[in-house]
Amino acid sequence: MPKISEERRAERREQILEGARRCFAEHGYEGATVARLEAKIGLSRGAIFNYFGSKEDLFVELAVQDTARMSDLWVHEGLEAVVREVLELDPAWLGVYLELVRRVRTDPEFRRRVEERQEAIVPVNRARAEEAQRAGEFRDDLDAREIGAFVNLVLNGLALQRASGDEPPRVELVVGLLEDAIGGRARRRTPARRRS
Amino acid sequence: MPKISEERRAERREQILEGARRCFAEHGYEGATVARLEAKIGLSRGAIFNYFGSKEDLFVELAVQDTARMSDLWVHEGLEAVVREVLELDPAWLGVYLELVRRVRTDPEFRRRVEERQEAIVPVNRARAEEAQRAGEFRDDLDAREIGAFVNLVLNGLALQRASGDEPPRVELVVGLLEDAIGGRARRRTPARRRS
Repeated sequence: MPKISEERRAERREQILEGARRCFAEHGYEGATVARLEAKIGLSRGAIFNYFGSKEDLFVELAVQDTARMSDLWVHEGLEAVVREVLELDPAWLGVYLELVRRVRTDPEFRRRVEERQEAIVPVNRARAEEAQRAGEFRDDLDAREIGAFVNLVLNGLALQRASGDEPPRVELVVGLLEDAIGGRARRRTPARRRS
Repeated sequence: MPKISEERRAERREQILEGARRCFAEHGYEGATVARLEAKIGLSRGAIFNYFGSKEDLFVELAVQDTARMSDLWVHEGLEAVVREVLELDPAWLGVYLELVRRVRTDPEFRRRVEERQEAIVPVNRARAEEAQRAGEFRDDLDAREIGAFVNLVLNGLALQRASGDEPPRVELVVGLLEDAIGGRARRRTPARRRS
């Protein structure tokens, strides 16, 4: 069998992930059987599991893609871009996360695998938050970790509402209130800056 | 068959709801079969479904209980009490909500039923928020509805993290940052009020 090129491998990897994402979104995690994954991806199970060891690996890799994209948006475009992105996510795909929440809580090995793969992103996000503190974009009287935890709460809330099909709040409202909570001297709400 | 008293009926209704809540939490919504509901509640299916028409009715009623309790806390004890309550909720029970999120989004009839039963609570919460605005507890340059939407985002985010088994952020942090976002003249953050 000829060895396929690195480029071809990367393409095929992308094809598998993209098909798996659509399959999970359409059928849910449990409902995405191997036969359905094959049909959606357009490759045999042999080929698929040659790239990813298991269905679980596929999900973890997709979660890592999401986290990396969010981090990239945050680092290069800021908070508002991340809020907008969460509001654009496919509700059916978000539902796959919800399906696995119980597992994350009750299966320490699964949690460890998800967290381990995302570890590299944590310091990047933290460094960007600390930079925002120095620039007066974020308040500097709290640890950057705590600011990040609060932002995550709001983003998780948005994701959950989106997965439920709820009418989302205005982006300007969410970003404006977040800034009032975590903004630094350059963003602080003053009595003169009223909204209507 | 003798007619049982109103009081006895109310007790039995409570017994059914309490058992159903434990059964859903333990087995998940899908996993809570009629046989398991009977075992946990300690009554026959005939008795159970004499009080509640279906498993779905049981869930809707439990969701209404939760919403009413949260509303009551908010009206009588304020925001911090609600935040504390969410952080105390049973993660396994929260998981049942997550299991039904997809259904809420894709089944308009189910959504309607859940929303309809909670309709009475909306104006009560709104009136309390408007009162908080008049008292300077909440800012008055936004509609009370928008303030409520933001608070809900944060509470939903907390619930999702709790269901995932994540380490929760400090209550004081969440309440403090919420107040900085939505607080009125009586609560506004000033440069003099720094946290460490």
